[in-house]
Amino acid sequence: MEFWYDFASTYSYLVARRVAAATQVNNIKWRPFLLGPIFKAQGITDAPAKANPVKGRYMWRDLERRAERYGYAFRKPSQFPRNPLLAARVATQDEPWVPDFTVRLFRANFEQDRDMDANEIAAVLTEMGIDAQRVLDRANSEEVKLKLKDRTADAMARGIFGAPTFLVGDEMFWGDDRFEDALDWANKK
Amino acid sequence: MEFWYDFASTYSYLVARRVAAATQVNNIKWRPFLLGPIFKAQGITDAPAKANPVKGRYMWRDLERRAERYGYAFRKPSQFPRNPLLAARVATQDEPWVPDFTVRLFRANFEQDRDMDANEIAAVLTEMGIDAQRVLDRANSEEVKLKLKDRTADAMARGIFGAPTFLVGDEMFWGDDRFEDALDWANKK
Repeated sequence: MEFWYDFASTYSYLVARRVAAATQVNNIKWRPFLLGPIFKAQGITDAPAKANPVKGRYMWRDLERRAERYGYAFRKPSQFPRNPLLAARVATQDEPWVPDFTVRLFRANFEQDRDMDANEIAAVLTEMGIDAQRVLDRANSEEVKLKLKDRTADAMARGIFGAPTFLVGDEMFWGDDRFEDALDWANKK
Repeated sequence: MEFWYDFASTYSYLVARRVAAATQVNNIKWRPFLLGPIFKAQGITDAPAKANPVKGRYMWRDLERRAERYGYAFRKPSQFPRNPLLAARVATQDEPWVPDFTVRLFRANFEQDRDMDANEIAAVLTEMGIDAQRVLDRANSEEVKLKLKDRTADAMARGIFGAPTFLVGDEMFWGDDRFEDALDWANKK
């Protein structure tokens, strides 16, 4: 199974810890990508929660309730959406620490209202005992930039239109509330 | 609790039978309304599934899978969306047979690919042993037309932007997959 997520996506935050817990047993591949270019290609110029404020208000309340149910300390960030580009480049390096890094960065943004800039990313990597400068240098390499572009193009080609998305072969599941369905699907194959 | 639904809404179909089963115990009020005028007021000119074909394809697949899980004989109607106006006027009469009528009409549209015009509605009412002509005459009365307009205006005023929507006081739950959350919320009060 593949877990496709965007670092700015609220519902990706909401599901990441559950995915991390299931990753080894279910051999889940983490696939950070950028939703922005996909929205743009579909003529969507603003995040759905911003384009429709009535729906947006509902989304924040829904997130609060679901976070409470999972026991997460969610709070609405003072800035939304934050730019996910650098974080996505860091996670596109496909290192074994990517799930842990992803969960920590999601929590920084959606629980502690911290930014997703180079300073905060370096702080998270350092907390994890990782050489932050080296990882950030690689994140800014042409190789990794290209890899992330390819990933995003691949997501679009496969019909991904939102995040989180779970792919089991060609079978697509969209939303934090479809993760368990995706797991069931993967396990009945 | 209130169950707000539109007869053209796929996910309203998907939840209606579960709501019917829980209606008496949980004192659920059935609130048919029209989503069209609300979309229009928000500048949405086409049903979301049509406006974004990539997302639309996903929706049909998601519906198939969820229907299978519930054991429902869902199949994609040859015409979508069908005009829900007359059905909504029939159900706005708030008679005790509204839940049963609603479920039957949803199944006609989303399982048997039947229309929602006066003939089909009359056939369903007749199957139920109800005087179809009398109900249809009342559905076309000024009183009922106005009542449905007021209902739809009320839905918009309360922040409803999609269907199905469950309201527990001011607490809103949107989507067939939030019905059980809404029930939990109602019962913890």
